[in-house]
Amino acid sequence: MIHVLTEKIKKMEAPIVVGLDPTMKLVPEHIKQKAFAEYGENLKGAAEAILTYNKGIVDAVCDLVPAVKPQIAMYEQFGVEGLIAFQKTVAYCKEKGLVVIGDIKRGDIGSTSEAYAVGHLGQVQVGNTMCRSFEEDFATINPYFGTDGVKPFIDVCKKEKKGLFILVKTSNPSSGEFQDRLFLPEGSSDAAGARPLYEIVGEKVAEWAAEHMGETYSYIGAVVGATYPEMGKALRRIMPKSYILVPGYGAQGGKGKDLKHFFNEDGLGAIINSSRGIIAAYQQEAYAKYGAENYADAARAAVLDMKEDIRTGIY
Amino acid sequence: MIHVLTEKIKKMEAPIVVGLDPTMKLVPEHIKQKAFAEYGENLKGAAEAILTYNKGIVDAVCDLVPAVKPQIAMYEQFGVEGLIAFQKTVAYCKEKGLVVIGDIKRGDIGSTSEAYAVGHLGQVQVGNTMCRSFEEDFATINPYFGTDGVKPFIDVCKKEKKGLFILVKTSNPSSGEFQDRLFLPEGSSDAAGARPLYEIVGEKVAEWAAEHMGETYSYIGAVVGATYPEMGKALRRIMPKSYILVPGYGAQGGKGKDLKHFFNEDGLGAIINSSRGIIAAYQQEAYAKYGAENYADAARAAVLDMKEDIRTGIY
Repeated sequence: MIHVLTEKIKKMEAPIVVGLDPTMKLVPEHIKQKAFAEYGENLKGAAEAILTYNKGIVDAVCDLVPAVKPQIAMYEQFGVEGLIAFQKTVAYCKEKGLVVIGDIKRGDIGSTSEAYAVGHLGQVQVGNTMCRSFEEDFATINPYFGTDGVKPFIDVCKKEKKGLFILVKTSNPSSGEFQDRLFLPEGSSDAAGARPLYEIVGEKVAEWAAEHMGETYSYIGAVVGATYPEMGKALRRIMPKSYILVPGYGAQGGKGKDLKHFFNEDGLGAIINSSRGIIAAYQQEAYAKYGAENYADAARAAVLDMKEDIRTGIY
Repeated sequence: MIHVLTEKIKKMEAPIVVGLDPTMKLVPEHIKQKAFAEYGENLKGAAEAILTYNKGIVDAVCDLVPAVKPQIAMYEQFGVEGLIAFQKTVAYCKEKGLVVIGDIKRGDIGSTSEAYAVGHLGQVQVGNTMCRSFEEDFATINPYFGTDGVKPFIDVCKKEKKGLFILVKTSNPSSGEFQDRLFLPEGSSDAAGARPLYEIVGEKVAEWAAEHMGETYSYIGAVVGATYPEMGKALRRIMPKSYILVPGYGAQGGKGKDLKHFFNEDGLGAIINSSRGIIAAYQQEAYAKYGAENYADAARAAVLDMKEDIRTGIY
């Protein structure tokens, strides 16, 4: 699957993933009204609205980008109905040939991580039958539990030829509260050797990455926010074989020129996410001319602009 | 809700939460066969089996313990069907008067955390209607993102009078990989003042706890594994107003005598979780006499023994 992702990035010249993070405020009024009229102003109505909205965007961008990243929280907020829309979104994107990164940020002790891993990336045994549930191609996970919380995900990924993006340095303003704090080297009291948590986690990701290598890149990648380009530069060196999934472009403030150092010299190794900047482009001044009815065309235009911004920034 | 939890703990003399973490290996054969016969050997069959299994346990222990903690991963592994069983389990437990701690360990950047918070603890707006989804009373969350990832959960908890347990020191063997690493004091290079990450996170929990206080305890608690009693002692002092949710008792190795220091001098401030040790007691030698048919009676006997072990250990 990491090979598929790399080939698609090369062919489309687009190290871009579109974040499918629908909220009620982003869905155009005509879609909401139609869904509410049919299903009611309730969780089912909301779920149908976001599914319709997603399909429009996917149809408009699937020939331009290699991958999408549905953020499960935006579906889970609508309960079971929302999660049905998540599952249908994943299936629809795969039908359209897109690589699907489930932005689930799960993580727990070993036996529990295994349950998440089989539910999202693998198969769960029921009696003598193996069943699949959400079926993403990649998933994001949280490293706070250490190796035994990550290992069950890697094991399932090996079996399924799927991959992970592990949180290292997140894009939000307070990510530094713990992630930037300086650690002493293990077993040492030499303050001069102190290094930030995100580097320690990055080193672990590099170790985990070595356990599940593809031909040139590992199936095990990392998440590093576009909002912290200097840290991205350091982490690029620490995890040379890992793809870096980079959120925070656009709406959160990152720009194409900040992204150069997230990439390796082969021009690969990073994939930049934009969510609101694409899916709600029609709400921005630059794309307002499309209007809410043509939100999908606005999304397509925003992807084309993003491709250009990134091409200019990194090459 | 923290008041309700405290009163129930006092009245029942049981600072105990039963972890409803069903897996196919724990569900007795007769329950599985019945569910498979009716719904098939599929996700729906599995979901029905775990729901029936849960109800039996809840009926058998709801007069003995104040709370239950369903681990959502064990449901999510069965996809949407599993999550329907999760929702029905939460509702059933609340009908029976139990406090429900959703063990969801979610956490993300602010806007995304808000979606998780409204989905699990609050209300989500759909058009002009406010809708509820999973409706737990408390949720566990992951602190890796720092304050702006935690704040939306606290805001929803304030509105709903609900609470959180934030991961501080987890019970698994490799939790020390990051959580025990020594940090320099902020803005200092004095190695002598270095302290472990779990203490730094614990201090943040104490700050967050101050933002949403009940009468004597805060609505904002912490998770600290029973498997690390010395760290529990230090963290008890750092977070005096927070309830500590303590996993790792029983199957993971923690014992009643290890738990004394998780409690305050008022005998309160901690709640000990046991999952497999209770729900699959019938599979243990000590309770084998009950047989799989009477798994619920075995669970009840195991709760009574656990109450006694904890009473002896902490008083």
